[in-house]
Amino acid sequence: MATSPEQTTAAGRAPEDSGGEGAAAPRRRPGGRTGRVRRQVLDAVQAELAERGYDELTIDGVAARAGVHRATVYRRWRDVGGLLADVFAAAGDDDWRPADTGSLQGDLTALNEESQTALTARPPLVSALIAASFRSEEAARGVQALWEDRYLRCEVIVARAVERGELPPGTDARRLLVAATAPVYHELVLLRTPPDPDLPARAARTAVLAASAGAFVSDPEDDAWRRCR
Amino acid sequence: MATSPEQTTAAGRAPEDSGGEGAAAPRRRPGGRTGRVRRQVLDAVQAELAERGYDELTIDGVAARAGVHRATVYRRWRDVGGLLADVFAAAGDDDWRPADTGSLQGDLTALNEESQTALTARPPLVSALIAASFRSEEAARGVQALWEDRYLRCEVIVARAVERGELPPGTDARRLLVAATAPVYHELVLLRTPPDPDLPARAARTAVLAASAGAFVSDPEDDAWRRCR
Repeated sequence: MATSPEQTTAAGRAPEDSGGEGAAAPRRRPGGRTGRVRRQVLDAVQAELAERGYDELTIDGVAARAGVHRATVYRRWRDVGGLLADVFAAAGDDDWRPADTGSLQGDLTALNEESQTALTARPPLVSALIAASFRSEEAARGVQALWEDRYLRCEVIVARAVERGELPPGTDARRLLVAATAPVYHELVLLRTPPDPDLPARAARTAVLAASAGAFVSDPEDDAWRRCR
Repeated sequence: MATSPEQTTAAGRAPEDSGGEGAAAPRRRPGGRTGRVRRQVLDAVQAELAERGYDELTIDGVAARAGVHRATVYRRWRDVGGLLADVFAAAGDDDWRPADTGSLQGDLTALNEESQTALTARPPLVSALIAASFRSEEAARGVQALWEDRYLRCEVIVARAVERGELPPGTDARRLLVAATAPVYHELVLLRTPPDPDLPARAARTAVLAASAGAFVSDPEDDAWRRCR
């Protein structure tokens, strides 16, 4: 799942306390100075985080790296938690969509491969962002909202599979998506096992087999679909 | 999975730099002063971590809470990373085994329920330990070793299911166990969704259905088992 903020355009939104220009201004002028400053600052947050880690992340360091006056950063983002929350908000502003490969197995494998690539990238930006979410309540809320948004966007994978007749109507999309993706995060983030190139496809296949066996259908009516095949 | 150090006896092992008594001494006298001091100190680490969090965790605070001289703590454990690593080592010293309920579904559900209980306990000791593992390299190695040990101990669940004829011989125990348990950790630790009382059994059932469909058998010979049933 692309939780990587690297794809972020950082254009559409700005922090609510965006100073004297009015809260709506950044939305009207996404390419203007407000948007540009935000992009510079959030890029600097990510670079500092990936290279130096949360403990070294400071408003002053971010301002210096971004080439922006520190007072601007303090006024708009207040503290490190505010910066991180905005990194997650900006990451959710992209137009990311899961790949459409033509099959459920293919779509889930592509999703897992994207996650594995992001989680093993150097510098370890996504891992650093996940780690930061254990440090700051604001970052935790930010990453939670981003995850929920990503899983919602992935529900189309299940809808397409239902349309193709690969899955019964009434399949619980979120449960299937969590089952398909959780092993990749579990291995790489919690268990810290070395990346296994087969893991993305294998975890996808497990979820597909479970789905075909009716694991994600709670309505007995829908389950009749499976028994009749 | 019981990664909770609350069940720790803390008796069988001591840090390698255990001072002038010789490295083997604590193993011979687990109930002696060395073992007692270790237990007091590690209990204090867990209490401080759960109540105050990693940022407030200090050698001095731990020593004061444990009622142990700070020089003793510095000498034996060196720093916060050393203390955390030893908490994980002590947690692995217990005689924890997964419940034997008589069925694969029952065993995996019991395992997930234990994990969900530990992850949602107050004070949040297990969550605090996971968070700490993102802060300290020593803690990260400690939690990694503890996870691997726990998954090894759980392989008996799969062996029993194979014996009962619930699973084909050649079922990859670790992959099945990760598939069964990952959704609980993913939801509670990464996605931070509120605990769902149905999740432990549901995640277990998904893995059982996938296993019955041959998801964890890589050898085509073994898979003949499934086709013949």
